[in-house]
Amino acid sequence: MLRALDLASRGPAGGVNPQVGCVLLSPAGDVIAEGWHRGAGTAHAEVDALSKLEPGQASGATAVVSLEPCNHVGRTGPCSEALIAAGVSRVVYAVDDPGQESHGGAARLREAGVEVIAGVEADAAIHLLQSWLAAARLGRPYVTLKWASSLDGRIAAADGTSRWITGAAARQRVHESRAASDAVIVGTGTVLADDPSLTARGDAGELLDDQPVPVVFGDRPVPQDAAVLRHPRPPIFMGGHDLPEALAQLRELGIRTAYVEAGPELAAAFVRSGLVDEVHVYLAPILLGGRHTTLGDIGVTTIADQLTLVTRGVEQLGNDVLIVATNPAAQSLNPWPTGRSTDQPPSDQQGA
Amino acid sequence: MLRALDLASRGPAGGVNPQVGCVLLSPAGDVIAEGWHRGAGTAHAEVDALSKLEPGQASGATAVVSLEPCNHVGRTGPCSEALIAAGVSRVVYAVDDPGQESHGGAARLREAGVEVIAGVEADAAIHLLQSWLAAARLGRPYVTLKWASSLDGRIAAADGTSRWITGAAARQRVHESRAASDAVIVGTGTVLADDPSLTARGDAGELLDDQPVPVVFGDRPVPQDAAVLRHPRPPIFMGGHDLPEALAQLRELGIRTAYVEAGPELAAAFVRSGLVDEVHVYLAPILLGGRHTTLGDIGVTTIADQLTLVTRGVEQLGNDVLIVATNPAAQSLNPWPTGRSTDQPPSDQQGA
Ligand SMILES: NC(=O)c1ccc[n+]([C@@H]2O[C@H](COP(=O)([O-])OP(=O)(O)OC[C@H]3O[C@@H](n4cnc5c(N)ncnc54)[C@H](OP(=O)(O)O)[C@@H]3O)[C@@H](O)[C@H]2O)c1
Ligand SMILES: NC(=O)c1ccc[n+]([C@@H]2O[C@H](COP(=O)([O-])OP(=O)(O)OC[C@H]3O[C@@H](n4cnc5c(N)ncnc54)[C@H](OP(=O)(O)O)[C@@H]3O)[C@@H](O)[C@H]2O)c1
Repeated sequence: MLRALDLASRGPAGGVNPQVGCVLLSPAGDVIAEGWHRGAGTAHAEVDALSKLEPGQASGATAVVSLEPCNHVGRTGPCSEALIAAGVSRVVYAVDDPGQESHGGAARLREAGVEVIAGVEADAAIHLLQSWLAAARLGRPYVTLKWASSLDGRIAAADGTSRWITGAAARQRVHESRAASDAVIVGTGTVLADDPSLTARGDAGELLDDQPVPVVFGDRPVPQDAAVLRHPRPPIFMGGHDLPEALAQLRELGIRTAYVEAGPELAAAFVRSGLVDEVHVYLAPILLGGRHTTLGDIGVTTIADQLTLVTRGVEQLGNDVLIVATNPAAQSLNPWPTGRSTDQPPSDQQGA
Repeated sequence: MLRALDLASRGPAGGVNPQVGCVLLSPAGDVIAEGWHRGAGTAHAEVDALSKLEPGQASGATAVVSLEPCNHVGRTGPCSEALIAAGVSRVVYAVDDPGQESHGGAARLREAGVEVIAGVEADAAIHLLQSWLAAARLGRPYVTLKWASSLDGRIAAADGTSRWITGAAARQRVHESRAASDAVIVGTGTVLADDPSLTARGDAGELLDDQPVPVVFGDRPVPQDAAVLRHPRPPIFMGGHDLPEALAQLRELGIRTAYVEAGPELAAAFVRSGLVDEVHVYLAPILLGGRHTTLGDIGVTTIADQLTLVTRGVEQLGNDVLIVATNPAAQSLNPWPTGRSTDQPPSDQQGA
């Protein structure tokens, strides 16, 4: 299985499809073929491995695959059927396919008399497939909503001035979170007010290797000299205010993780629509007062309707504080944006 | 000096006056008298010790005192003069007297030819005199402002409902902070809305040994059946909206530390008046939106006017988070309300 995972990692990491590897073993236990998935539109790992054998050569073989063989007719045929047709007698895989349309491969195989063993090296496979699994489970990109505010929950002073609420260490962490995300989302309101570059930069202002795709939500045009237009990756503009539809389109483009750095209006729209999986709140130890609150109308009218999250952790960054909380409906991808092992689950004991 | 501190601790801890001890040593180094201060209106430690000797017996002696001898004519004469008159030739003390009227004793002694050594066992003395020193330095009680809010800085849902925003661990910490304070302050708005008992209670709801004096600020009458009227210590009612005057009166009553659990109006008034030394923000991982923000008008109009605090520490309490920040103008009394050693200074590196 570790060999299958190694093969898997040869495939493209940031695509629509998962990275999957497959090793075919003879009944005697010898490797007879290997395969991996090279991205959307190309053969799945199992089919890639089978293609390297003569007809009949896979009869009685064991297929070791990092992801449950798919069961749907997509751009390629269902892998479960291909394995059955090739006469494979045993399938060993790491993680279940959480996809709405693609899952059920294991059941189909068992139905056809193939022995199926699931869960082998599951942790390593989950690690590799983390963001793809989350997006597959949710049917859309995993959404992290980030904002920075004063201790009293304001994003700007009464006159709207706000620049540099948080310090260097917090800003650096934000750049790392951008680099770790497939896309960064803002609303036109933020582009027009702040003209952010939305690049992921290092300590010295240099561009990091991983750059998120900048995505601007809203119908208003963006000025021709907007900094986002000079981003190393071409920005995507999403009009129409239909958030589920926009996220579905982004997923089609291979975006599995979205980091939302919007202002109060678009941020509130994400919360109101139940489309926030994780929240990163940066708090600067300042007091501002006034009307510029962090979130607009999120549709909560009475205390019983509150949106309750689970605190995953809290950290002091220079003079600022970062709180990470997740929606209990969505299992956290990375409880700590960086700097902490994601293998160690954070304590999430609840106050009784 | 450790003997002097031991004597000091025999005096009353929560009074208007500090706990002070004094040991008189003969020129040969033998203890010839001891004294300590028994509270407002009684002799200061030095005078108490001198009173145990025959006239002339203190000539050439060394006085070891835990606090700089006072220099003002209060309810008792200035100790510096008493030591000079008794012929003491050397004074060793631990901490300077920060009081506006009482300091200057060391200078007066040196002027009269007495050898003065300051700072001996200062840490231990500061530990004993912490809250008295803070109040003496500030000329008023040390004020900690506490509030509990959602992650987006709201204290209630749109309809005003709010009970139990935070969980058990956070509430328990609040009770410990009440027990550690001389007074708990609220506004009439909070009494009328929530009818809080303002007692310090343990896990099982039992009253703790240390109970703060409940203080209600505001002119509106409080209902005859208000819970605060059943507090084990008689409540103090402060009308008139003059916060500096009210704090001065509380200090006269021996209150050195005040824990303000007011609503947004009185809390904002404290901030606006520059009377907040420390802030405890409890954040529950919930989102509320709406108009019920944590602080009312604090008089900040543009970002350059922001009140900037120093983050002393942050802690996860169950599902909630506690952030402690201090006003740089006031040295923190207890960076961690409980559970952490105050001896270990928290890192207060600032984000550049
Ligand atoms: N402290 C922070 O963390 C932080 C972060 C970002 C921004 N900000 C501040 O926020 C302010 C801008 O606030 P904002 O609320 O205008 O910015 P915004 O939330 O980024 O943008 C709002 C715009 O998003 C578009 N949009 C797209 N889909 C939407 C939907 N479903 N619902 C609502 N809007 C949708 C709309 O644009 P169209 O009208 O063009 O259709 C709307 O006007 C600036 O002052 C900025 O500095 C603060
Ligand atoms: N989440 C939290 O941490 C928390 C804590 C406490 C309360 N609350 C909530 O806050 C709400 C009550 O809000 P609130 O603002 O009315 O309560 P408040 O701040 O406790 O009380 C306000 C009152 O304080 C009096 N006051 C005295 N001196 C003042 C001064 N210098 N400036 C202004 N006011 C002064 C005034 O009373 P007079 O008009 O009688 O003179 C004023 O109406 C309740 O819903 C309660 O649940 C939340």
